[in-house]
Amino acid sequence: MSRVIQTTRRKLSFPVVTITTDFGESDHYVAAMKIVLLQHCPTARLIDVTHFTPPQDVLRGSITLERAIAAAVPGTIHLAVVDPGVGSERKLLVAEIDGQFVVGPDNGLITWAWRLHGGGRAFEITWRPKVSASNVFHGRDIFAPVAGLLASGKPLKSLAKPLTGDPVLLDLAPVPKGKTKGKVISIDHFGNATTNLPCALVPKDRIICVHTKNRLIGPLRKCYSDVVHGEPLVLIGSSNLLEIAVRDGNAAKLLQIKVGDEVEIV
Amino acid sequence: MSRVIQTTRRKLSFPVVTITTDFGESDHYVAAMKIVLLQHCPTARLIDVTHFTPPQDVLRGSITLERAIAAAVPGTIHLAVVDPGVGSERKLLVAEIDGQFVVGPDNGLITWAWRLHGGGRAFEITWRPKVSASNVFHGRDIFAPVAGLLASGKPLKSLAKPLTGDPVLLDLAPVPKGKTKGKVISIDHFGNATTNLPCALVPKDRIICVHTKNRLIGPLRKCYSDVVHGEPLVLIGSSNLLEIAVRDGNAAKLLQIKVGDEVEIV
Amino acid sequence: MSRVIQTTRRKLSFPVVTITTDFGESDHYVAAMKIVLLQHCPTARLIDVTHFTPPQDVLRGSITLERAIAAAVPGTIHLAVVDPGVGSERKLLVAEIDGQFVVGPDNGLITWAWRLHGGGRAFEITWRPKVSASNVFHGRDIFAPVAGLLASGKPLKSLAKPLTGDPVLLDLAPVPKGKTKGKVISIDHFGNATTNLPCALVPKDRIICVHTKNRLIGPLRKCYSDVVHGEPLVLIGSSNLLEIAVRDGNAAKLLQIKVGDEVEIV
Repeated sequence: MSRVIQTTRRKLSFPVVTITTDFGESDHYVAAMKIVLLQHCPTARLIDVTHFTPPQDVLRGSITLERAIAAAVPGTIHLAVVDPGVGSERKLLVAEIDGQFVVGPDNGLITWAWRLHGGGRAFEITWRPKVSASNVFHGRDIFAPVAGLLASGKPLKSLAKPLTGDPVLLDLAPVPKGKTKGKVISIDHFGNATTNLPCALVPKDRIICVHTKNRLIGPLRKCYSDVVHGEPLVLIGSSNLLEIAVRDGNAAKLLQIKVGDEVEIV
Repeated sequence: MSRVIQTTRRKLSFPVVTITTDFGESDHYVAAMKIVLLQHCPTARLIDVTHFTPPQDVLRGSITLERAIAAAVPGTIHLAVVDPGVGSERKLLVAEIDGQFVVGPDNGLITWAWRLHGGGRAFEITWRPKVSASNVFHGRDIFAPVAGLLASGKPLKSLAKPLTGDPVLLDLAPVPKGKTKGKVISIDHFGNATTNLPCALVPKDRIICVHTKNRLIGPLRKCYSDVVHGEPLVLIGSSNLLEIAVRDGNAAKLLQIKVGDEVEIV
Repeated sequence: MSRVIQTTRRKLSFPVVTITTDFGESDHYVAAMKIVLLQHCPTARLIDVTHFTPPQDVLRGSITLERAIAAAVPGTIHLAVVDPGVGSERKLLVAEIDGQFVVGPDNGLITWAWRLHGGGRAFEITWRPKVSASNVFHGRDIFAPVAGLLASGKPLKSLAKPLTGDPVLLDLAPVPKGKTKGKVISIDHFGNATTNLPCALVPKDRIICVHTKNRLIGPLRKCYSDVVHGEPLVLIGSSNLLEIAVRDGNAAKLLQIKVGDEVEIV
């Protein structure tokens, strides 16, 4: 196992570590993790994905994390901490997906990346701090140091062992091939509604529409300017999922779309 | 042309790239741009200016961008993406202003910097990714890589050509010399109201007041403590524009000032 | 003096500078400070603690700053600017606490760090920019450059002199040993209520409860999962202060706790 792991990693001068949490930005929590991480890898390039995951919303964190993984390249490390079960018996995970590494709780956070990128390999963190860790902040005391050690080139086998059993995965996942019914899974900052319908479900050059509880929207467009000001449209979002948007407007408000609404390719 | 460009740039070990968007911080969009940018320039120092530009508010983005340029030095690169026309025919721009480089859509975002810093030179991006770009996220697929390539020392002439015609500029711009009437153009986090009246309009040591629809405020003060707790004042903001503030208070709320209100130097 | 200072510092390749302000993230202010800081120390690793300190709330800034210091190691520099008195006669401070350096206004911002870490040494900044500083933005014009110069290895004695008299300290401070009555001093992003009761007040293995105006909560727990879903608990927060929380819920809302409420160890 360890040999395979090592071949997929090389020591980078400025390794990239992304950070996804539900900590908000009003407190010192994110900074505490970064301070510790840089102690273990002073040249790591830290990229905040978001700290505004709705508190304890593992599904939403999972979707955001997958998008960060989709944007990154092999060798990237993702520190992901949305962790309502901190201090309980949930395991501490490193998952290797597409040659990238996710460090965080084993609570389903990796679901979307695992499903959309064809699975991966899962490890349980065995590393512990010399001074005993706090029971309420594994992000600072375990996950951040492990992410930093990985970034610094430390072999994974010295930090973790293969996970016994499968990693925890959430029920709500991307719609698989052959199916056409999905759901709205998130609403972004602009009011765009992301569905769990991957664009791979849409045959090339075929005209599709998306049906929601309220109305028929379609066909699939290439960009906002394909429709007039204020008109709704369906397009492929940057995460390769079908998105419902309104040109120059807020789709969630105008179409009264909310998370969980059913959508269907027709 | 290219010779002039090259003389104004030198390869920096840790080139500074600022980022101004309307993406918010709840999604992965900003991270996706940073990941791509660091792939092209692993040592770039990334500085977030703001991602909370009101969605699609090109004027507000333009003012913030100008402030970042005013704070920076030649060689700095500014990635600026407030882009309601993404996917339409609007051009992709690099503007050189005071030896700094702005990379973003040609939709007026550079207006304030262009007007306050005496214009500059404008180029149209010719660089395209090897894999075809998404139609909805030029920030990640074109602007971020071009900013990274510029930061890494790549010659501008290999990425862009001189723009045909003038860059797009907004109508609302700083008040020119000799005029005394302006407007409130933005309200900041503290409730301070920034006007489009540059402090250069005020002759040295001359006492001025600022008149708004509601009341006379003045004379020009040097700092908050020149007035008592709760009193309004006019001072020169950090962007060298006249600002209306209230000591220990929120001027926008207390004086009922909003964006667009007329102000006049008297 | 200067000899002692020098022995506590060594030149770091990638010195860490944390930043705590009340500037928000909608404007260019934070970026302006970072741009200047990196001009003086291009390799500094900048870590945002928060820019969402409630405007001009020096107490809250002080608590956050202490948490950043508690998370960091000797040699770290903390740029802390919550500065309602900017432009007035308040002094410009560098405080050395536990071998770390705080750069900011002398207005009480260091109170919590000073009290919890056993005091320190205080200096008044003598460095001034060559071009005269703005009266309204010492963060950009004085504090950021001084933080950058310190990070770059510049001797403190060339930037500051010993402070005459004591630094300004706030009245509201951590409860000292031997006392049992304290207050709720902040509510975080999750609704957890932090008190000014350090965990050192609780004898090891002794069962304690915390009493608020409304109810008795206790005994002290190790982690959230020690109680059932929706139940309140007291635990030691990451800042080593007693915190009141609710498992999977918002303690401030559910228990109607607000800043200033009395709490008592019983």
